[in-house]
Amino acid sequence: MKLICNQKVLANKIGIVQKAINSKTTIDLLKGILLSTENGQLRLTGSDSEIKIETTLQAEIEEHGSIVVDSRLFGDIIRKLPDSFVQIETDSNSNIYISCESSRFTIKGLSADEYPKHQDVHVENMSTIPQAILKEMIKQTSFATSQDQTKPVLMGEMFEVSSGNAGMVAIDGYRLAVRSSFIDGLNDDIKVIIPGKTLVDVNSLMSGEGDIKVGFTDKNAIFIMDDTVIVTRLLEGDFIDYKRLLPKECNSRVRLKTKSLLNSIERAALLSQSEKNNLIKLSIKNDVMVITSNTDRGNVYEEVSIELEGSYLDIAFNSRYIMEGLKNIDSEEIYMEFTTNVNPCIMKPVDDIEYIYLLLPVRISSNI
Amino acid sequence: MKLICNQKVLANKIGIVQKAINSKTTIDLLKGILLSTENGQLRLTGSDSEIKIETTLQAEIEEHGSIVVDSRLFGDIIRKLPDSFVQIETDSNSNIYISCESSRFTIKGLSADEYPKHQDVHVENMSTIPQAILKEMIKQTSFATSQDQTKPVLMGEMFEVSSGNAGMVAIDGYRLAVRSSFIDGLNDDIKVIIPGKTLVDVNSLMSGEGDIKVGFTDKNAIFIMDDTVIVTRLLEGDFIDYKRLLPKECNSRVRLKTKSLLNSIERAALLSQSEKNNLIKLSIKNDVMVITSNTDRGNVYEEVSIELEGSYLDIAFNSRYIMEGLKNIDSEEIYMEFTTNVNPCIMKPVDDIEYIYLLLPVRISSNI
Repeated sequence: MKLICNQKVLANKIGIVQKAINSKTTIDLLKGILLSTENGQLRLTGSDSEIKIETTLQAEIEEHGSIVVDSRLFGDIIRKLPDSFVQIETDSNSNIYISCESSRFTIKGLSADEYPKHQDVHVENMSTIPQAILKEMIKQTSFATSQDQTKPVLMGEMFEVSSGNAGMVAIDGYRLAVRSSFIDGLNDDIKVIIPGKTLVDVNSLMSGEGDIKVGFTDKNAIFIMDDTVIVTRLLEGDFIDYKRLLPKECNSRVRLKTKSLLNSIERAALLSQSEKNNLIKLSIKNDVMVITSNTDRGNVYEEVSIELEGSYLDIAFNSRYIMEGLKNIDSEEIYMEFTTNVNPCIMKPVDDIEYIYLLLPVRISSNI
Repeated sequence: MKLICNQKVLANKIGIVQKAINSKTTIDLLKGILLSTENGQLRLTGSDSEIKIETTLQAEIEEHGSIVVDSRLFGDIIRKLPDSFVQIETDSNSNIYISCESSRFTIKGLSADEYPKHQDVHVENMSTIPQAILKEMIKQTSFATSQDQTKPVLMGEMFEVSSGNAGMVAIDGYRLAVRSSFIDGLNDDIKVIIPGKTLVDVNSLMSGEGDIKVGFTDKNAIFIMDDTVIVTRLLEGDFIDYKRLLPKECNSRVRLKTKSLLNSIERAALLSQSEKNNLIKLSIKNDVMVITSNTDRGNVYEEVSIELEGSYLDIAFNSRYIMEGLKNIDSEEIYMEFTTNVNPCIMKPVDDIEYIYLLLPVRISSNI
């Protein structure tokens, strides 16, 4: 292999495929980036058992070939080179020669023959989604996926499309986040479970401008942006029928300013964060929600102005779960809906963003 | 104690005294900030066994008093409060009541009676130094102080003034950094050893504009900026007579661009950084310095343009020590001066900044 390409572009492309590479893997080949040449192009591939990211860049190819190069070292070298042309050459002993202006590196590569072959994933009819919408759907839900390896399905998010209405759903057993949106031109009905980590990677690779192409097979999802293709396996299993979890009734409905509540809870959480449950208590009355936390370190009392429809209520939550929900709502005002203090609470924007964040309360004895 | 002050100002002042507080101390009182009132002012004090930082802010005092409050928790609470007036009140059981708009905190304080008394340090004739100069002197030397607790004197920097010429010197056994400057109005002759950590704190508290007042007693140094007073103990012992270490002769003198050399060495160090000595080799010839590093991970060859006066030379260094020196030289070009490949090398700016960075080479066998 022998080629010349641009340092800045290559450095950027390395950053893209590195998202697929798990630096903790014990398999040397999977710590590497597969470099391979095509007509006028250098292709970079990074993968682990779940995800594969491929991207290409323009290169002047003098000799075709392929090799696997340590991702971390290769990235560090290319990023530190001057903004100029980089020449990459390999020999039959898998040595890689990298030169750029007055710098010359020789590092050891691994044979591309051993690099894991991934099945080609091809989808006839890819759907087109505006990046801005998909970014919001991922941002507002992915934090609520489970980190519990014993419940692999909950480490993913359900992506469901029906008659153009798309929904992204994450559940971790304590809370549930659903973001929906009508997406023009999304005609096929879809119901898949995408690994949460893949969605976070896809989100970080999207600029937020333009579109992303999305397609599904039985076992895989494929995302395409410009020169970059992300293929991920889908998770198998049944996702919880989340609609059953949404309360049918509501005894207390509160309207309040998102940021005011977040600020108050962040303060209240300062005392509770060293405790196990991060417990804070909300006491809902006319015009005011009182937030309190009593811990060994002291106690705190906060008031937030509200508009209440329905009954007074005392209820307790893990402050972390409320804060994470509030931080992912950009809308200025939200509704909070309660049934009783042992039933889930719902938070949703007052504006027309279709977002629901449901969280379970913590049971408290009635005398506190 | 009962007072009202401004949230933003108080948060800023807490940040200042927190620099003196070692959060790892096992003494609860020293994890705390001493709050005490004076006429129209709240005084904050943070200290450990080496340094004390005091600062004051305007406050409306309704009742005089003093208390010690956990530094971390107090700082976190005050920073999270709204930009408004904060009321702080204590009772006879050392409870502290903090309120601001609709937030009310109660936390436990500690009696100020137990807070360590520091001897009052008073200096008649304080000297005035432009902050910009002192900042440079500290920045260009403090990184070369020793971190070795068995050599306490070398964990400090010598500050020496003679006939208005001030010098700051740090040595760690492998390298030596000296920054000198004539400072107008510095009339007293001074020779003290100031703890390195104190200088880093002083540096971080200086904006770089205006002056700082500096004074010394037998055992202490005192720094005054605006409302803030920093008192530190001086280190006892004899500092190495560093002038003896500076080479008298020079067989090879190289002039080169600081940034070019730094870039090349940063790249060469990518391969060597996993090895024990971070070893890189410099080979000095006419017009060019060749930098090489051969490691298990591969090898690298870099060329940097130079102007050479004197003989060719092959010499090896720990790349970290060269990089740290180069990163702290803002001048565009430097001289490097060598005697032999087992004698120290000197780096100094070509312009009129009085800075010397001396570093010891690593011995290499002649056949590499």
